[in-house]
Formats: sequence, structure tokens, C-alpha cells
Amino acid sequence: MQSRSETTARQIDFYFDFISPYGYLASLRIDEIGARYGIPVAWHPILIGVTVLKIMGLKPLMETPLKRDYVVREIARYCRRHGVTLGRPLDGPMMNPLPAGRAFAWMLRHAPEHARPFARAVFDAYWREGRDLSVAEELRAAARIAGVPDEMIAAALSSEEASALLRESIERAVARGVFGSPFVLVDDEPFFGVDKLELIEEWIRCNGW
Amino acid sequence: MQSRSETTARQIDFYFDFISPYGYLASLRIDEIGARYGIPVAWHPILIGVTVLKIMGLKPLMETPLKRDYVVREIARYCRRHGVTLGRPLDGPMMNPLPAGRAFAWMLRHAPEHARPFARAVFDAYWREGRDLSVAEELRAAARIAGVPDEMIAAALSSEEASALLRESIERAVARGVFGSPFVLVDDEPFFGVDKLELIEEWIRCNGW
Repeated sequence: MQSRSETTARQIDFYFDFISPYGYLASLRIDEIGARYGIPVAWHPILIGVTVLKIMGLKPLMETPLKRDYVVREIARYCRRHGVTLGRPLDGPMMNPLPAGRAFAWMLRHAPEHARPFARAVFDAYWREGRDLSVAEELRAAARIAGVPDEMIAAALSSEEASALLRESIERAVARGVFGSPFVLVDDEPFFGVDKLELIEEWIRCNGW
Repeated sequence: MQSRSETTARQIDFYFDFISPYGYLASLRIDEIGARYGIPVAWHPILIGVTVLKIMGLKPLMETPLKRDYVVREIARYCRRHGVTLGRPLDGPMMNPLPAGRAFAWMLRHAPEHARPFARAVFDAYWREGRDLSVAEELRAAARIAGVPDEMIAAALSSEEASALLRESIERAVARGVFGSPFVLVDDEPFFGVDKLELIEEWIRCNGW
């Protein structure tokens, strides 16, 4: 029997929302995993406000009794274990993730080479530096750090198409069963949560169990 | 500095609901983990109908859009990986977990040497053999398999105290931040979900990070 990798081009699809701390933590490791196994990683924006809140009918983690305190402990443990320092409290005010998500969706379509560096810069500015990425000026600053030309981020932020592109990304994700952040699909196999990263590696190594 | 194990008696507190497939899967491994590190494991009954549904205000996994399909895939993957075969569909009718939970809570108090074998037999009868453990006769059969004397299971099933004992177990659990199944506390550190078992081992080995 041929192994799957000889017959099909594999891809790791990585779904996240910028306001998700678990999504941020996964973003720091997912590309390394792809590189380790020579598998390309595609980053996709979603909004948990659409998937988790509207479609699933659940409430935000930090507004859920018991879960809220658990998330604080779990994220702190993860950060100690992986040497990450967050620059904002988990229960503080959150940014509006729409402007960043739309700009990222626009770049994926129109300037794909800039999209991932921009997303990384947004994640870092929000989660490591505690900035409010709801604000256009902060998004422009993140874009500059990522080496995105000023006129390009300006085009992304003023685009009317960006909103539709983000919506389409979410619709495609939901059609594949994606709901949370982070969510990873490899060989159409779904993995939800940052604690699945080791399992994803095992899946890849074993070429699907 | 002394290591924690030299100064404090450690215990692994394992919380579960009999109707939780993830709880069943964890029950198959948690005692081995305790044995490997010489740490006693205490089993505690909870009801996710109280913690997840009432206190957290969430809905059952299998009634949550998107999550439902994910759970089916994830459990199937886990079962393949760990060589477990389930004898009932995840989306079939569920038992009423109250009689088994109450009987287990009663045994923990009045016949602790029989409690865990009984719980294992209930889990196996429900999840591996697909029996309906809402029914007293099936609980008696599980008790017999576990070597529990007939008069003891009869006392547990007819006890008026059993209901209060289960309620108190849940209250103590919630006071410690427990909400789901499986949920494990070691050194007061909380771990939610069967995918945390490896992390729990690492925590124990490193004597707390």
C-alpha cells in the first residue's frame, strides 16, 4: 500500500480567531510542525462570535461559570510550560476582532505573501503587548512591523470586499466542521484545541492512524 | 528545597459522570497513572447535568451543532489509538445517570472497598456492552460482576441517604472548580478532559512545574 503522502498533497489547515488566547498559543507552534514534516500550513480566519456564539449557541468562555477560572489556570500553565508571556489579562476588555479579521482575509486574497506576517504581528501586538487592535492605527502599526506596505494595509482597511471575504472564510470553515480556535484539519481529520498539537504530529507521522 | 512529595501526601482526584464517554475512557487509564507514580487515586461522582447544564448554562455536547459531529470523530480516533471498542452509539438514548451515581456515592461512604469495582462494572456495562444502567436489575448485575454482595447493592439502591451523598459530592467538586468529565485535580491543579492525561503525568513527574 502506498503511504498517503505519496498519493495526495497534504496540507495543514489552521483556523483561528485573533481574540482567542488558545489560537495565539497555537499560532506560535503550528508552522514549526508543518516545517518539521514538510507539509504546508494554511492559515484561515474565523470568528468565534459567529461559530461558537451564534451557530453553536454557547457563551463566551470568560462569561461561563467555572470554565472562566479554569481557563485562567490552564492558560497560565501552558504559558509556563512553553515559555510564553501574555501581555494582557484574559478577563480584561477584548478587542473587536472584525477589523483585523477582515484585513487578514483581504490580504490572503490580494497579497498572500504579506498575510501571515501581518497575522503574526496582530497576534503579538494584541496578546504579547496588550494593544487594542480594534483601532486602525494599531493595525497599521502591526502591518508596518510585518513589513506590509502602508498603501496595502490602507487598501485592506478601506476595502468593502474584506467583509465578504472574511464571511466566506467562516462559511467554508463551518462547512468543514470547524467551530473553535484553534482548530486544525489534516487529511480532513479535525483537531480542536491547542492541546491537540502533539496528537496532530503523531497523526502526521503515522500518516493517519 | 524539598520536593513536594516528601512534604505532602499527594492524591489524584478523578471526577466523572457515568454518562460521559470521555469519563469512561479516562477511567480506563487513571489508576495506572496513579500506580506508576505511587499516588493514590480517589474517584468522585459528579453529574454534568448539574455542572455543565445548570451551573454553566451550556447544552449537552450531542445537542450542540458542530460539536456533536466533532465528538463522534474525536472519540472514534481516541478509541482506535487506545484500542477501545464502545458498545453503544454516542448519539443514542442515554441512561439516567442518577441511580448509578447515587449507588456509587453510597458505596464510597458505606462500603468503600466495593465502590471502585462497582463503578468500573457500571462503566463497562454501559459503554462497552451497551446496557441500560438506568434499570435497577442492570445495576444489580453490574454489582454482581464487581463482587458486591447482593444485600449491599440492595441497600445502596433503596437508600434515601444516597441522593444527599451524591449531591454533596457534586457540591464539593464544584467548590474546587470541577465542571466536566473527566476532571482531575492533582496538587489542586485542575485538568479537564481525557487529552490531559499525558500532561497530568508530566505534572506529577516534575512535581508541579
